[in-house]
Amino acid sequence: MTKHWQQIAEEARAARDKSIPDEYKIDITNCKDNVMHFATEKNALLTDRQVEITKLTATQLLKAIRERKYTCVETTQAFIIRAAIAHQLTNSLSEFFPEEGLEMARKLDEHYERTGELYGPLHGLPVSVKDHLHLKGHLWNIGFTAWANNRSTEEDEDGIIKSLRDAGCVFFMKTHMPTSGMVLETNSNLWGHVYNPYNRKVTSGGSSGGESVMISMYGTAMAVGTDAAGSIRCPAAFLGNYALKPTSARFSYTGQANTSPSQITIPGTAGPICRTLEDVKLLSKFLIDVEPWNNDPNVVPIPWRDVKAPEKLTVGVLRFDGTVMPHPPVLRAIDESVEKLKAAGHEVYEFGMPFDCDEVMEKAVNMYFQSGFAEGKALLAETNEPLIPALSQIFERYGIDRELKGSETFKLNAYRNKVRKQFLDHWLATANSTKSGRPIDALLLPISPGAAFEHDVLPYWGYTSVYNVLDLPGLVLPIKGCIADKNKDLKDPNYNPVSSWDKDTYDQYDPELFHGTPVSLQVVGRRYFEEELIAIGEAMDRDINQV
Amino acid sequence: MTKHWQQIAEEARAARDKSIPDEYKIDITNCKDNVMHFATEKNALLTDRQVEITKLTATQLLKAIRERKYTCVETTQAFIIRAAIAHQLTNSLSEFFPEEGLEMARKLDEHYERTGELYGPLHGLPVSVKDHLHLKGHLWNIGFTAWANNRSTEEDEDGIIKSLRDAGCVFFMKTHMPTSGMVLETNSNLWGHVYNPYNRKVTSGGSSGGESVMISMYGTAMAVGTDAAGSIRCPAAFLGNYALKPTSARFSYTGQANTSPSQITIPGTAGPICRTLEDVKLLSKFLIDVEPWNNDPNVVPIPWRDVKAPEKLTVGVLRFDGTVMPHPPVLRAIDESVEKLKAAGHEVYEFGMPFDCDEVMEKAVNMYFQSGFAEGKALLAETNEPLIPALSQIFERYGIDRELKGSETFKLNAYRNKVRKQFLDHWLATANSTKSGRPIDALLLPISPGAAFEHDVLPYWGYTSVYNVLDLPGLVLPIKGCIADKNKDLKDPNYNPVSSWDKDTYDQYDPELFHGTPVSLQVVGRRYFEEELIAIGEAMDRDINQV
Repeated sequence: MTKHWQQIAEEARAARDKSIPDEYKIDITNCKDNVMHFATEKNALLTDRQVEITKLTATQLLKAIRERKYTCVETTQAFIIRAAIAHQLTNSLSEFFPEEGLEMARKLDEHYERTGELYGPLHGLPVSVKDHLHLKGHLWNIGFTAWANNRSTEEDEDGIIKSLRDAGCVFFMKTHMPTSGMVLETNSNLWGHVYNPYNRKVTSGGSSGGESVMISMYGTAMAVGTDAAGSIRCPAAFLGNYALKPTSARFSYTGQANTSPSQITIPGTAGPICRTLEDVKLLSKFLIDVEPWNNDPNVVPIPWRDVKAPEKLTVGVLRFDGTVMPHPPVLRAIDESVEKLKAAGHEVYEFGMPFDCDEVMEKAVNMYFQSGFAEGKALLAETNEPLIPALSQIFERYGIDRELKGSETFKLNAYRNKVRKQFLDHWLATANSTKSGRPIDALLLPISPGAAFEHDVLPYWGYTSVYNVLDLPGLVLPIKGCIADKNKDLKDPNYNPVSSWDKDTYDQYDPELFHGTPVSLQVVGRRYFEEELIAIGEAMDRDINQV
Repeated sequence: MTKHWQQIAEEARAARDKSIPDEYKIDITNCKDNVMHFATEKNALLTDRQVEITKLTATQLLKAIRERKYTCVETTQAFIIRAAIAHQLTNSLSEFFPEEGLEMARKLDEHYERTGELYGPLHGLPVSVKDHLHLKGHLWNIGFTAWANNRSTEEDEDGIIKSLRDAGCVFFMKTHMPTSGMVLETNSNLWGHVYNPYNRKVTSGGSSGGESVMISMYGTAMAVGTDAAGSIRCPAAFLGNYALKPTSARFSYTGQANTSPSQITIPGTAGPICRTLEDVKLLSKFLIDVEPWNNDPNVVPIPWRDVKAPEKLTVGVLRFDGTVMPHPPVLRAIDESVEKLKAAGHEVYEFGMPFDCDEVMEKAVNMYFQSGFAEGKALLAETNEPLIPALSQIFERYGIDRELKGSETFKLNAYRNKVRKQFLDHWLATANSTKSGRPIDALLLPISPGAAFEHDVLPYWGYTSVYNVLDLPGLVLPIKGCIADKNKDLKDPNYNPVSSWDKDTYDQYDPELFHGTPVSLQVVGRRYFEEELIAIGEAMDRDINQV
């Protein structure tokens, strides 16, 4: 007989905890809400050299290893310690295997020593791996206790992870994800909540919360997230990372496990989460240079293109989607960014949505859950596991309680195509009213209504999920000068909500709660024009963040 | 109260027949099975100059108009007569509006006269329009009597048809299509059967049968077909045309009506049907040069690329898919083609399928009919209209009788992705055993098991539909030296069928029945590599057909 979910979770956590070497254990009693000082300040477990290594960007690190400044083994060792610390403060790992990572690193060093050649273009780069991306020999479970002991075979590993391995990356951990992945925080009955290291009262975002934590806390040099509703963008935003959710089928999406075999109305995507935009570009280019269309039959064969952003941008800005007013910290981030863009001579165009986002979201949730979560419910039943709060809330809110019929799926697909067409026409029509006379180059907008949100509270998905419906690439740009601040970001006591989502979102705002959380914005580009989006993002990053 | 289907069909046909001017009426009593002599021999209704005009390819015609050798009006007039004749022999039109076409032509001539500039790159090119592609002001009904009076608005017209209009094309007819479009012959209760002009005992193929007839019989200079299961390739093959079914989302697919709002597991496509491969290339390039991604949000922005085929090709050849043995005329076309390719120095590689095509077809039909044809059944019920034989046969054969559940749709999507991956890996692995050391450049295979098939008989779809599941581009190459011949293409009395489909297909073969029907083959390429496929097709056309 299958065990009860609580017993499985206890055993899984005990095994995971045991894999953290005693010498890296830290005392986390009496920790404050903000634990980022463990990452940013000198630490007893780390040498100066180890701090130096882990603070390098991926681009810098690859160069330093190539120039033999550091070996792969010492690099890996440094990140292992950082990751162990990060995990203890945030609960982000599902599996930790430092010995395997060190063994990979040793082989890379030997190869370089013996041949004088790098093993591959990412020789020695530590990469954390999200639960549902298959890594041979390791666990995957998508947060389900019924799947607690699932292990990826050599054949399962494919796509991005296989390309990273072939390029010389080093793996020593897997981060966990929320039950089913269709949640914008990271929590499961199997592994518990991932905490935001800037503010443990709020979530790390999800479903790639563990990955983002590892980037923020220097536990890895590169992370890979996946995103069908905001799962790369929310965690990256809540933790101040740079990231790219690409157009679907631009990068590979094979080699991943999923609760629902294949929901294709709103296709999932995978993309890099990094500490700089330079790293995002490096890794995006890498993911295309491997010619993924020769392995993943759904990838569109568009080789990487070197492009330049226009010298003076025409940037659309969306402050309010008509359904949910963002919280004060997010509105301030927009205002400050707009001022900086204007000061740098860019044109800023006030953009409004061409459709009702409340309605689009209601349809989107039905698209995600066409099966009424039948597969997930069957898995939960196996171990008597309850729904996590975020899932039960979204099912209740949108009335997800049954399998859709084929004709309903067809109607949702048609609806998706209709709003895609409306949005494209609306975007291109901006050319009629911009000063540049061309359509906006990109759209600057929120990622979530809040800088983050409380654990187990359902946020509004409309600022990310709508762009999955539209299948447009979205870049996460942290607004470095803007941290949620209870003294600046006051709650307007007279605000009149325009929708039930707006009311709930307004009620979710508490200046005290969010104080100290990073704020990020999204830059959305044209479909399949990732190169242009990154180039535009670089210009905006320069002028907004002085990078 | 809605009328009965028979009355609606009678009225629709009467109105259509009335639109054929009396002076173009021909006597079709005592017509033989082969009526192509009306197209290929001198005709009392046509002047020598009109014969000359209509026999030009699209490429030649555009040049002649540009050089003022012919006006658009006289060009249009010539094709109008040809189309009227073709229709009377094959029953291919649903609507005929010669005056509107002549008026368009007059305006084009005036424009050229006045400005000295062509109106657009396809100035004066007559194009026939398939029923479900919206043409403003005209009928569309997808073969349903309930929709007999549906008329496209100005807003409906979009995508390819709008691009053709903007480029200076001339429209004067719509051709009909089978009920629902999901049939590989052209027949409906509303319009009846379209006959194959080479052999009226067999079908023209479908669903773009009307379009292909117009190309074969010189009723138009260009036709546009649509294809989700073989609807471009079957009619083009049965009538000896050149055609391209592109990868989905390479060309625009907006501006078309559909019974099922949006079946996206096997996406539909639209592409040109022509008399030469040069025309196919011209029109394919045109359809990409208009940058359809600025109008159709699903189109992938890959600009047209000028490419060359390898000097010596490595051609995979599939004679038998493991489920259905092609009929003798098709096998002979393959044998003769292979000999000619080898003689020209190309490598021919014997290719076998990596999966069970019988199973793939069973899944594919479920993908097409996820709604259990609920939308179609509701339409039929409105006018008490029965299913056409081809639809009732396919529903019975594959047990299509209910709406699928979301979880079943998800499983079908996953299955689709699985076979796409199997096929891609299998294709690339040919590099291990070809003499060239590279994967096959293209795959040569049948389009249908037969040169054509009898009216109201369900053929095996596996040689076309499987490549829709795989979403690979397919070129139709008529094998000009090969016409079904009762003296050469004998039936093997000792053949032992390997599957129930094989048995039925074997039984469908009758040397006498198919005698005189053209035979064509398919050339399949890599996904989104339309340019390479056309270049390879040109080389094969040269060496097989001495074009």
